Amino acid sequence: MFFKTKSLDEALDIVRGRFHPLGEAELVPTVEARGRVLATAVRSPIDLPGFPRATMDGYAVRGQDTFGASEGTPCKLRLAGEVKIGQPPDLYPPLAPGEAKTIPTGGALPPGADAVVPVEDTDLSDSKEVLIFSPVAPGTNVMAPDEDLRAGQEIFEGGHRLRPQDIGALLGVGITQVNVVRRVRVGIISTGEELVPPEEEPGPGRIRDINSYTLKAQLEEAGAVPKLYGIVPDEAGALLARTRDALAENDLVLLSGGSSVGTRDLTLTVLSELGEVLVHGLRIKPGKPTILGISNGKAIVGLPGNPVSAMVVCDKLVIPILQRLQGEKERPRRPIALAEMARHVPSAKGRLDFVRVRLVSREGRLLAEPILAQSGAISSLAEADGLVTIPAESEGLERGERVAVELW
Amino acid sequence: MFFKTKSLDEALDIVRGRFHPLGEAELVPTVEARGRVLATAVRSPIDLPGFPRATMDGYAVRGQDTFGASEGTPCKLRLAGEVKIGQPPDLYPPLAPGEAKTIPTGGALPPGADAVVPVEDTDLSDSKEVLIFSPVAPGTNVMAPDEDLRAGQEIFEGGHRLRPQDIGALLGVGITQVNVVRRVRVGIISTGEELVPPEEEPGPGRIRDINSYTLKAQLEEAGAVPKLYGIVPDEAGALLARTRDALAENDLVLLSGGSSVGTRDLTLTVLSELGEVLVHGLRIKPGKPTILGISNGKAIVGLPGNPVSAMVVCDKLVIPILQRLQGEKERPRRPIALAEMARHVPSAKGRLDFVRVRLVSREGRLLAEPILAQSGAISSLAEADGLVTIPAESEGLERGERVAVELW
Repeated sequence: MFFKTKSLDEALDIVRGRFHPLGEAELVPTVEARGRVLATAVRSPIDLPGFPRATMDGYAVRGQDTFGASEGTPCKLRLAGEVKIGQPPDLYPPLAPGEAKTIPTGGALPPGADAVVPVEDTDLSDSKEVLIFSPVAPGTNVMAPDEDLRAGQEIFEGGHRLRPQDIGALLGVGITQVNVVRRVRVGIISTGEELVPPEEEPGPGRIRDINSYTLKAQLEEAGAVPKLYGIVPDEAGALLARTRDALAENDLVLLSGGSSVGTRDLTLTVLSELGEVLVHGLRIKPGKPTILGISNGKAIVGLPGNPVSAMVVCDKLVIPILQRLQGEKERPRRPIALAEMARHVPSAKGRLDFVRVRLVSREGRLLAEPILAQSGAISSLAEADGLVTIPAESEGLERGERVAVELW
Repeated sequence: MFFKTKSLDEALDIVRGRFHPLGEAELVPTVEARGRVLATAVRSPIDLPGFPRATMDGYAVRGQDTFGASEGTPCKLRLAGEVKIGQPPDLYPPLAPGEAKTIPTGGALPPGADAVVPVEDTDLSDSKEVLIFSPVAPGTNVMAPDEDLRAGQEIFEGGHRLRPQDIGALLGVGITQVNVVRRVRVGIISTGEELVPPEEEPGPGRIRDINSYTLKAQLEEAGAVPKLYGIVPDEAGALLARTRDALAENDLVLLSGGSSVGTRDLTLTVLSELGEVLVHGLRIKPGKPTILGISNGKAIVGLPGNPVSAMVVCDKLVIPILQRLQGEKERPRRPIALAEMARHVPSAKGRLDFVRVRLVSREGRLLAEPILAQSGAISSLAEADGLVTIPAESEGLERGERVAVELW
């Protein structure tokens, strides 16, 4: 079997071409929908605010009554009572020409009034009259009944991931339940004879499985529902059986492990057995020995065994698959820090490099120090503040070069 | 009572000076600790990997046996068996001079061996002998027993917020429980006669409470445990009683509402009654009518009633208070997009402005279009992709100016 390695962009094109949104939705309470992805567009069921609303503390007036007012020649309006916040506009008699009523921010404009004069442009000469020092056009300092949202107006497109403010916006128009894409289920299998569960003491020659847990946490952060299928020995029959189980219960299956040629071959055997291999080798570093396959429309990803490689491939390939399955719009997910490279970092042309860096402040400058540990080193996971990308066409980063550090 | 308004930096200095880390920790399973803040530094209990570990597929050798090897004059080593992954190093007889054993990535180096020759620099002449085409110094392609982490070495400082990879790193050294700061409890009270709960139909002149829910979602995202205390009418006695209840059960209390002068005065009265007012008015836009108080060491924040203002003040002032209380190290929290201003935006000197923007791609450029809606507009919450900051010393942003858009 011969496979040409693919660039990350080529792999992502394959993802878009071969995998499709799940298209399954569920209704959830809006107050619990943070981080969920809208299954369909959402429209406002009502006009908002629904009544003409003062946006300043001041006096509700007829704008035309104030025309010509100035500091030197204020106009005088008869004080005709007070609008209280939260009270319906028709509770008051309509405002007659020449009248003003005090009104608080958020108060409903009484019938007859069409503008608000801010309190700082007025003077209460006595309890019967108010002096207006500045004219207001009709509509000034008033939010019209449908100015914020019109009934039927689209608030969000389908595929939008709900942020805290979106929860507020939906509740503000009375949408207390919302139709969201069901969470993507992801099965995670670790392979490798050398692995023991974290709670066990590894004997000499063995190490604890960490990829299952790092991947699980990454997927939870991205909104998926991961399930661990434990550690499978390096044996084709066992791996095939466990992968079949995981495929039956999930939308996407990750096989983590296989840095050695033997285990890698095993993953490839299992993927070929279960479906079609789409990508065998990625032109990225770390992460080259990545395999992507498809089985009955479900994705199977064979991730490298090195913890750093597995994490990078999860972030750059698996999360995009997840977003594709949940029909989510693309969006930047990580904070960026702008820094200067503290050292030269060479890179092979034709390969996309992700360099782990530590951020250090020195004399008011933010420096990105590359971490030179091997991609198997757990310590480098803990130490790295983020990743700097070296594009495929570049031969490396110069010392002092300005870079965007993607914090992770 | 006279208060000079404060800059955001002055307010944050006050936060650091007057509020202190809670200093209460709890032990949680590491697998559930994502997003939690470490109460104390964490050190590795063990050397990692704990044994000399091959980092390539190839042959375990004595480095000195390969000195002088080249493409033209390979050295010949006797093939003395195979190291299997996961097996203890002392399972094998020590490697004798002139011998090599096959070894997979991750395999434990047998005693006597000190380096690994990658498989691509070798040729298996027959089942008895391997040809080595390139010399390896001792230590090459081997991770030393304590190279990743030494027993006692600090992995994380206290105050570090645990990321997905950190869960993996902790489990990798066998730390299955971890000492984290307990979550900060935040009470949220809405004030305003015009507010009704989202599930109710607001009559004319009234609107649905959204700030309680936006703030709750923001605080959950930041790792706190928010609790809603409902809507309190604009009456000092009721607000005082509800605030006392919330203070008794929480570390931090937010009063949202009070855009009108009357409600603002009420919040101020309650804060003065319960403790000391530290900040009354912030030189930021939106968010000027913000009040910060302290009561028995607990923070009370009076937030503006406008949804956008409340959200901005939560992000810029309340979350930093939260981080202070949980002793968290400062860190960027939001993704940044670099864009060009689509329009000129003026700004008053001496005031920090946060401008809501929509991101639009046009002819390959990313433009930040300011959203000109009022800060009471719910639609602008939904529409905005992020915030652009105009520093206090600036008079505004020019059209075409490069800006960092903080995505929210």
